[in-house]
Amino acid sequence: MIIQLHNNITEKDRNALNKILSDNKIKFSEISTQFKKYIIGILSNEIDIRLIGNIEGVKDVHRVTDPYKLVSRKWKVNPTVIELGDGVTIGGNGFTLIAGPCSIESEYQVQKSVEQLKKNNVKIMRGGVFKPRSSPYAFRGLGIEGLKMLHSVCKANGIKIITEVMQVSQIEEMIDYVDVFQVGARNTQNFNLLDALGKVDMPVMLKRGISGTIDELLQSAEYVFFAGNEKLILCERGMRTYEKAYRNTFDINAIPILKEKSHLPVIADPSHGIGIRKHVEKITLAAMVAGADGAMIEMHHEPEIAFSDGQQSLNFEEFDKLVNRLMVLEEGLK
Amino acid sequence: MIIQLHNNITEKDRNALNKILSDNKIKFSEISTQFKKYIIGILSNEIDIRLIGNIEGVKDVHRVTDPYKLVSRKWKVNPTVIELGDGVTIGGNGFTLIAGPCSIESEYQVQKSVEQLKKNNVKIMRGGVFKPRSSPYAFRGLGIEGLKMLHSVCKANGIKIITEVMQVSQIEEMIDYVDVFQVGARNTQNFNLLDALGKVDMPVMLKRGISGTIDELLQSAEYVFFAGNEKLILCERGMRTYEKAYRNTFDINAIPILKEKSHLPVIADPSHGIGIRKHVEKITLAAMVAGADGAMIEMHHEPEIAFSDGQQSLNFEEFDKLVNRLMVLEEGLK
Amino acid sequence: MIIQLHNNITEKDRNALNKILSDNKIKFSEISTQFKKYIIGILSNEIDIRLIGNIEGVKDVHRVTDPYKLVSRKWKVNPTVIELGDGVTIGGNGFTLIAGPCSIESEYQVQKSVEQLKKNNVKIMRGGVFKPRSSPYAFRGLGIEGLKMLHSVCKANGIKIITEVMQVSQIEEMIDYVDVFQVGARNTQNFNLLDALGKVDMPVMLKRGISGTIDELLQSAEYVFFAGNEKLILCERGMRTYEKAYRNTFDINAIPILKEKSHLPVIADPSHGIGIRKHVEKITLAAMVAGADGAMIEMHHEPEIAFSDGQQSLNFEEFDKLVNRLMVLEEGLK
Amino acid sequence: MIIQLHNNITEKDRNALNKILSDNKIKFSEISTQFKKYIIGILSNEIDIRLIGNIEGVKDVHRVTDPYKLVSRKWKVNPTVIELGDGVTIGGNGFTLIAGPCSIESEYQVQKSVEQLKKNNVKIMRGGVFKPRSSPYAFRGLGIEGLKMLHSVCKANGIKIITEVMQVSQIEEMIDYVDVFQVGARNTQNFNLLDALGKVDMPVMLKRGISGTIDELLQSAEYVFFAGNEKLILCERGMRTYEKAYRNTFDINAIPILKEKSHLPVIADPSHGIGIRKHVEKITLAAMVAGADGAMIEMHHEPEIAFSDGQQSLNFEEFDKLVNRLMVLEEGLK
Repeated sequence: MIIQLHNNITEKDRNALNKILSDNKIKFSEISTQFKKYIIGILSNEIDIRLIGNIEGVKDVHRVTDPYKLVSRKWKVNPTVIELGDGVTIGGNGFTLIAGPCSIESEYQVQKSVEQLKKNNVKIMRGGVFKPRSSPYAFRGLGIEGLKMLHSVCKANGIKIITEVMQVSQIEEMIDYVDVFQVGARNTQNFNLLDALGKVDMPVMLKRGISGTIDELLQSAEYVFFAGNEKLILCERGMRTYEKAYRNTFDINAIPILKEKSHLPVIADPSHGIGIRKHVEKITLAAMVAGADGAMIEMHHEPEIAFSDGQQSLNFEEFDKLVNRLMVLEEGLK
Repeated sequence: MIIQLHNNITEKDRNALNKILSDNKIKFSEISTQFKKYIIGILSNEIDIRLIGNIEGVKDVHRVTDPYKLVSRKWKVNPTVIELGDGVTIGGNGFTLIAGPCSIESEYQVQKSVEQLKKNNVKIMRGGVFKPRSSPYAFRGLGIEGLKMLHSVCKANGIKIITEVMQVSQIEEMIDYVDVFQVGARNTQNFNLLDALGKVDMPVMLKRGISGTIDELLQSAEYVFFAGNEKLILCERGMRTYEKAYRNTFDINAIPILKEKSHLPVIADPSHGIGIRKHVEKITLAAMVAGADGAMIEMHHEPEIAFSDGQQSLNFEEFDKLVNRLMVLEEGLK
Repeated sequence: MIIQLHNNITEKDRNALNKILSDNKIKFSEISTQFKKYIIGILSNEIDIRLIGNIEGVKDVHRVTDPYKLVSRKWKVNPTVIELGDGVTIGGNGFTLIAGPCSIESEYQVQKSVEQLKKNNVKIMRGGVFKPRSSPYAFRGLGIEGLKMLHSVCKANGIKIITEVMQVSQIEEMIDYVDVFQVGARNTQNFNLLDALGKVDMPVMLKRGISGTIDELLQSAEYVFFAGNEKLILCERGMRTYEKAYRNTFDINAIPILKEKSHLPVIADPSHGIGIRKHVEKITLAAMVAGADGAMIEMHHEPEIAFSDGQQSLNFEEFDKLVNRLMVLEEGLK
Repeated sequence: MIIQLHNNITEKDRNALNKILSDNKIKFSEISTQFKKYIIGILSNEIDIRLIGNIEGVKDVHRVTDPYKLVSRKWKVNPTVIELGDGVTIGGNGFTLIAGPCSIESEYQVQKSVEQLKKNNVKIMRGGVFKPRSSPYAFRGLGIEGLKMLHSVCKANGIKIITEVMQVSQIEEMIDYVDVFQVGARNTQNFNLLDALGKVDMPVMLKRGISGTIDELLQSAEYVFFAGNEKLILCERGMRTYEKAYRNTFDINAIPILKEKSHLPVIADPSHGIGIRKHVEKITLAAMVAGADGAMIEMHHEPEIAFSDGQQSLNFEEFDKLVNRLMVLEEGLK
């Protein structure tokens, strides 16, 4: 049960509400986000919700039986739109492209990428500075200095930044230089990180776990919302399966199902979802018609020498073609 | 190595060719299909292919290193088009819709389905009369009598039939009443059935196995071609994975990969691929933009009372809407 | 609901029983095996089973809510023992070893294998003559002539034979030369084959499908029992998963679960279950202590030159060691 | 390439060594653990290792081509033994039992558990105080106060403690109260946590990821060793697969493969590995004969009222029986 409160609810009303919940032996949690106040009640048995709904400071009451509550579409029917400033948004109408290299490697590379984004009217750049790598011997990213450099180039060009945060202690040092925090597939169930990201006022994009279920992704989003941050984006990036003909199995089914179950925007990551450069375009188009709110594409000015993920990064010509195809398709679908 | 022969190759040329192959210790198989003659040589070491290419009766020689040969796009670059007669085709340009109920249940049901297909200009009907069911206590289909009834209604209306064949002994009794034999996901590696289907001149649509790999599907197609039947269609119908939010994981990645690796047409089965009625449309659109040559859709005049698969069958209104969306999309993509 | 009938039930009693079932709108199937007669009723609602139990010709009545009925342990609490003649059994007490090559290759190989089995007091030999192979270009076995040769050597030495049957038409030609029909992992849901094997009086060992569930294996066994053959053995041979460090994931969990759910004997196939020769022993021991009734081991007098599965076949020295370890363990467990 | 250094290597020798590595363009990392000093060189081409081996301060040089180096058995053939003090060890000879509740719930529960462990001569207790839970609404553990209580009871009774650490900031507050840090299945690739655990002198047990590969587990162990901590234990706890008959698929194959590939001890977690109380004993026995160095068992004085994982926790009677069976088996295997 989700109880939406008026932000200016009086102490008297709060007390009255708490008494009803306690009298009915309902375990409840209070949530206060950058926008609103909620109470989540875990119901073990029936209760007459009019008792609660009649209190002055209560805006609305909804029953939600899913294991996730606040991110469910059962109570919030309209899609959530994430505002990044300067008119850049994710969710609602339209299809938002995010593009850039797997890893930030050099200022030259960032400059080239930004020019390419501007040419194609793409407003958000991706690029990792803290890289989770299976092996301790692999390149782990340029770190916070890389991020500052990325930020200074992007800011000068009106480009927003999404980049991965790997641990709680990085949040504070990163927050002035990013527009969206990305939580990677290995951290989808890093609950301490989710808790901490719930306490800042910055959009968070959550990738589905490497073999995560749709339900687990939604519950991880619930963690962040529960801790106080409503600015959430979901990302489908492929599942680990038995098939060896490609890197991951992009779960196209997850797109309409996430859109049905949650009010949050859903971004597709076809680069990781198939992992083969020449097929990224097809999977991006498929994600769009399946209902995704956008796609995040790995692109590199010279994929052959990329520090990481070169095999799945588009070169600039391929990216131009992808953008063109998306525009034709978007037009055709109107 | 694939050696294409002229159909009128002389005995003398054949002998010369055999001698070269034997002299070079190449294990080889002779294939004779409804269209052409081939020799497949399994190379253990290098050979100068000009030795072979210079023989009069040899049309062409191709190296193919894939485990499958004849179904590979490495030697046959142009897409294969399957002709069902009366101008009905699968493959090449255009997107072919196949629709109908999971199981054939009654003449009334067939009549209703055929009317609905004609209304939407769909030329091929699906419908099972032999149903593979996990439990011996489930409905196993109307059998050959059901097929004859289906055929008489379809023939009168100019509709082609695709239906599942489960075992070798059914081929002969079914062949006069079908236009395409379907091999189901549980029989993808029923090699005796594949051998037998290679010996008839009737198109065969092979579904990917329940947890089959892309490679296994192509090798199963190779079986049929090897036994003499070039009229082959591949079908992606979803994989078995850990995710429980839907029936199967539709493998959108498989579409561009199958199209890249093979010259055979690829049909999507979104009904089994997601198994949830309200999301079938989205997956069909996704399959189209990913490059599928068509889709096979479960549809029922009253899904709520279908003998099988009601939860994934579209009703007529939903099907009309799907066809309309496909047409808009096809138009937009031109 | 399983209704056990006395074999000599009178027509009058049968009629009375049918009337009760019909009056209560119970869908039912009659089963007659080499041993007994049963009626399976699919209950949609409650019925007072005393009505049925009181009929003279009815031996017992059991409620079984599993999707499989006759193979369930819910009605038959004692383990089923399969008798192969000459005192050779599978199931009940003791651990039955089956061993031999993947494929029958030559009389010399069979002779060597039989000597090795006799030396180790192993009474059942495995060896394929019809080989299901993913590629049409791979070795497909010696066929029926190979089986006859195998039989003549084994018979002379008192060794029983288990070998794979791939299609209905092979049953009749094989039946005089085998002691157990094996259904391979690609045919677990070849329902026509299961039906046909239900009609012969010969033990059948069913392998779990390549990505088959435990439930599907039990339902496939139900098919054979339903068609009239109670002599059934189950075989766990590993699942297809994402892990690439070995061939299949041997499902040790399946052993105690199959033993709990069914009265049928369970054989482990560690050779396919891990696919790495040096680890086969450990997995065999694990299967034994987990409750398996036996194990089927691939063994070859010279694995390095085996036509198939050499990488997972033990040589004779390794096999001797395995038998010795099993004996020590069996002794220790007493 | 692993270069083992003498701990007292002179600066001169170090400089000579560095020069050789640089001259040969070898990328290298220096590792200094609680025991020894190593240099890991990533070779892109051949080098004459005698050049390095001849330097005075170099103890030994090994080629290791695995993606993991220091945890590989290719250079360290003898099994690693982890010493917890007071003669309690993990690895080497013998089978080490670890047992206790999923979550620490109360002092009463801890007292009961400790008595039960002492009765069965088990020296290490498990019990979570920080619980990673999919849902923010589930019980998240008693926290650091719970750990202090657990420690005071265990210390008084000579019992060692293993418990899960979820984030870097917990390490310092926990370290005085634990004997082994456990890294849970959701944190196997939390690389920051691994780095931080590499910097403390306390044994670490790494669970395999929820859908982690064997290779990823070994590379995660490499992270900790690389950062300076050699005291490592691996734990197999089941994979996520398509099978729904149990909680996870316990990967029995992983036991001999991990023992072959690494010198680190391997603990089985059959409680999570099958998730069904009545089958935990069988899987534990199987893990033992497959070569595991021990097992970690969930046990509760009253599983029916456990805060978490009650369905897979043994009660005391079942645990007594398990210990007895293990002793019989261990005796039998001698």
